[in-house]
Order: sequence, then structure tokens, then C-alpha cells
Amino acid sequence: MAITVVGSVAFDTVETPSGRIDRCLAGAATYFSLAASYFTDVRVIAVVGEDFTEKEEAVFATHGIDTRGLERAEGKSFFWQGSYLDNLNEAKTLQTDLNVFASFNPKIPDVYRDSEYLFLANIDPVLQRRVREQMPDVKLVGGDTMNYWINDHRSNLLETLKGVDVLLINDTESKLLAGTRNPVKAAHDVLTMGPKSLVVKHGEYGATAFFSPRSFHSGVAPHPFRAPALPLAEVVDPTGAGDSFAGGFFGYIASQPDLTPEVFKRAMFYGGVMGSFTVEQFGTGRLQQLTRDEIEERFAIFRELTHLESQRS
Amino acid sequence: MAITVVGSVAFDTVETPSGRIDRCLAGAATYFSLAASYFTDVRVIAVVGEDFTEKEEAVFATHGIDTRGLERAEGKSFFWQGSYLDNLNEAKTLQTDLNVFASFNPKIPDVYRDSEYLFLANIDPVLQRRVREQMPDVKLVGGDTMNYWINDHRSNLLETLKGVDVLLINDTESKLLAGTRNPVKAAHDVLTMGPKSLVVKHGEYGATAFFSPRSFHSGVAPHPFRAPALPLAEVVDPTGAGDSFAGGFFGYIASQPDLTPEVFKRAMFYGGVMGSFTVEQFGTGRLQQLTRDEIEERFAIFRELTHLESQRS
Repeated sequence: MAITVVGSVAFDTVETPSGRIDRCLAGAATYFSLAASYFTDVRVIAVVGEDFTEKEEAVFATHGIDTRGLERAEGKSFFWQGSYLDNLNEAKTLQTDLNVFASFNPKIPDVYRDSEYLFLANIDPVLQRRVREQMPDVKLVGGDTMNYWINDHRSNLLETLKGVDVLLINDTESKLLAGTRNPVKAAHDVLTMGPKSLVVKHGEYGATAFFSPRSFHSGVAPHPFRAPALPLAEVVDPTGAGDSFAGGFFGYIASQPDLTPEVFKRAMFYGGVMGSFTVEQFGTGRLQQLTRDEIEERFAIFRELTHLESQRS
Repeated sequence: MAITVVGSVAFDTVETPSGRIDRCLAGAATYFSLAASYFTDVRVIAVVGEDFTEKEEAVFATHGIDTRGLERAEGKSFFWQGSYLDNLNEAKTLQTDLNVFASFNPKIPDVYRDSEYLFLANIDPVLQRRVREQMPDVKLVGGDTMNYWINDHRSNLLETLKGVDVLLINDTESKLLAGTRNPVKAAHDVLTMGPKSLVVKHGEYGATAFFSPRSFHSGVAPHPFRAPALPLAEVVDPTGAGDSFAGGFFGYIASQPDLTPEVFKRAMFYGGVMGSFTVEQFGTGRLQQLTRDEIEERFAIFRELTHLESQRS
């Protein structure tokens, strides 16, 4: 089943203790699309500038990602520069140039309209809603957001959240959105705002899913579910880990006939798996070079990391 | 199989957002003993003052904990006062009175000498080693420590670690001990210092075990294992959560015939279970009132929280 994703396609310059990369292909929609492409068909909606060349186009094409919704505008693409030299868990932003993204008005190609899944990556909630409203018949809507929208565009965000089924945010964002320091109370509050399910990401500690009675057809809310992150001896570049998690998570869900608790839980593992690959190299380097076998092998390691009984002999 | 534990038996005054408790029975050896007592026989070595009365004695007696190694000294027991008002994840120490603990010289009753398990709770590594050396024939030695000993008594600690089989410390302590910011590299370094296995506690995110080839008879180091903590809507008092984890963990191991990877993993879950009970009430209140059924029920919730396939129908 096809996923349409709207978000940023950008260029990043990143410094980490492992080194530096200049103007690499990046952006939430890029990480999401590449991660999801290993599971299902992906269609991207974004805007890029004249610096987006055949070389970048080929990355999407190689992974079968539909770019007919990728608008080309005069000027430069969204650019971000950040440093993780002080703290691998949190980027210090050194420069943000919105460029062509400043006047982004998402247009949905007709060929995208039969997508059954929609992911609203972290952009202005007004734009997220505009896309959501033009695709009223999708089966499942996933979404992301960040502190800036929660703090300064709260009423717009709350309006958008009414149309999101599964929200993926981090600990800080969840607590900020709910206005409480307890993570469980925060989750319950967020689940009254629209989302049926909430995935709270904990960085190196994995992610926890919280469910409402509306999460599944059964009308019963399962206990929370916690998926691990892989303990890694070196995190080369954490950029895009959360978007890759979302791509693996949503991509797996879209590849399955029904959203059951079992599918949701496995999707959390696939999210962690894709995030763990992303941070092994700069930019989307590792994400471009995966095989489905490597993904399944790492899924088995995630299982061994958390399950009392070993499946391997 | 019996565990001997050496550590502090103390009184605490604690303030948290949920309220305050004055001079309640506490101390690492107390939390450890109570948690472990649900799984196996426990023998405690500590020193208390004249403020330790029949009432406190009865708490140990009710749980079948052997207190013949509990020395009575003139003066007051170890007293600690702390506040979690600003941060539930980290105590602010307001007062520490060592009192009778200042001249503690652990003596091992002869009746303790056939203990097969020894746990060295967080005290001066010189005292830990003194106990360890007097019990050369134990089957397994567990240990804990803290930043103060790592920073200011490093050479003593390193000498003591040579006699510890399973070390239980938190993220910060592990990184500090190894002198590296990467948690996996830190774990590998610590596993060269003596401990065969390392359990790194992550507070609300659970704990991760790292293994060396010496961890089990097989001579093969399993992948790391991550146990969850329970997402709780209210943490009343986090004091003693780590010691209760150690008690549940080590108590379960001592109740089993052999230390296999499966036993170690289940022990991690029981550790998390006992920690999750402790923080539900002030002091040792909850830990005093448990049943084995409640423990098994929560173990099942921990399984559901982490396992892809549900065991309950």
C-alpha cells in the first residue's frame, strides 16, 4: 500500500565527533522516504531548489520513490547546519536557511490521491493540515512535530492533531505538549487531543507506544509497548534517526493488511532498526545501501536484546 | 541459596512532589534485603545505632531476614535527607550524618559463612573488599558503587572490582568509571576491570546488561540484554529503586540452580519489577507489603511491555 509523505527535502552540513559532511542530501521527508522504501511504495511531496540535481534525483529513483510531487522552484533548497560536537543526543543548530521552503505550498499530484497512508513530517502544522484535508480518505495518518510548533503555533498544531491517528514525538515534546512532567500522564493527555496512538521516542533508549481504546478495531487499549534502540559502539551522525524510525515504523505498517497490536509492535522494532542503521554513517549514506536481509538480521538482534526466550538456537 | 549483603541500614527524610516522610527505615542494604527476601534467604551485615528499635527489627524479622550480622553501636544510625522536588530522577542531598557508620568495620557471623551469594552494596570499597576476602568461597559476587568512590577512591575501587562478578551501576557511573562518553565502549572497558557481567541502570528507561565471555559456563558472550522499567503515572519516592532492582535481580539468581543467560535475563525483569514497586510509596512501605502473586503479575506486565508476541490470550 502506498504512503504519501510531506516534509522537507534539504541539504545538511553536519559536524560530529566522528567527522564532518558538507551539503549532503537530507531533510525529514528524505530520511522517511528512504527508510519506508524498503517496505512499501513511497510518494514524496516537498519543494527543492536548483541545487537539487540529477544526482539527488537518482537517490530517490533508485529506491523507487515517486517524486512527481517534488516541486522545483527557483533558488536554493532548504539548508541546515548543525553540530553534535558537545552532545551526540542533541544538535546545536548553527544555520537554518529556509530558501525555497519559505513559500512552500504543498500540491498533491492526482496520481498520489489513492494513497492509503499519509505521513505528515515535521513542518508547519498549517501545511500539514492542508495536505491532510486534501486526502480525506486515507486509512491511517501519521505525524511528527517539534518544540517550535508546540510553543509558538499551539492552536494551529492542536487543530492539525485532530486529523492525526499516530503521533511520533520525543519525550520532551510529549511533556511540553501536555504541560506535565510525568511521561505517562503526558501520554494520556496527548491521546485526548486527536491521536489514537502515541509513539514517544527516547533516543538511545528506544521508544514507548501508548494506546487509546481507539487504537485498534477491538476497542481495547493494550498495555504500553517499549521497543529498544541498539546499543552502538559508535554513533557517527544522529541526524535523521527519528525520521528513519518513522519511515521504518510507518513503512512496515503500510506493508501489512491490517493494523493490529502485533503489527504495531513489530513496526516499532522496524523503526528502531532503521534508526540504528541511519546513525552508522553520515547523512543518508547507510540508508541508501541496505538490503532487506540486513534489515531482518538486525530485527533478530532487536528481538534478542529484549526477549526472555531466544529464537536462535 | 542464601545471600549475604553488606551495606547501609539507615533512616531517611525525603521530600518529593507527592509529599514528605520523616526518618523512615532506609539504606541500601534494607532495600536490597527486603526485595531479595521474596526470592531467597537473606543475611544482612550493617551497623545501626540506638534509634534502631524493635519496630525496625520487626520489619526484617517479618521477611525472614537474618540480622545476626546487624551490629548495634552507641549513637545514632546513618541518616540521610534528600529532596526530589526539582527532579524526580536525581536526589538533591540536604544532609548526610554518617553517625555509627563512620567507624563501621563489617564482621561476618560464622553462621553467614556458608552463603553462596554475596552482595556488596554501595559503601567504601575498602570495606567491600574486606568482606569479600573473608568469603572467598561464594559462588557469585554482586556489587554496586557510586561517583564518589569512582572519583576519589579510584585505586581502592579498582582493587575491589577484581573480586566482583556482576557489577550494577548507572549510566553516569559506568561512563565515569571507564572515562568515555559512549555507553557501549564504557561497558566493554568496565568488563576488563574484573566484573564478568555489567548491568547498567537507566532509571525510567530500564537497564542494559553487557556480557563478557566469562559471564557464563559456555564461554560465549551473549548479545546485550535490555530490561524495561514500568511507565508509571506517579513516582511517589524514587529512593531505593536501584537497590530494590539489585535485590530482585540477585534474589532471583540465588533462587535458581544455575546462572544461565535465561536466568540472568529473567533476573533483570525481576529487578525492574521490584524497583517499580518501591517507587509507588514512600520508603520501604510498598516493599514491605508485597505478595509473590503481585510480583508474578507485574512480571507478566513487563513481558507484555517488551515482547512481540503476547502470552496472555
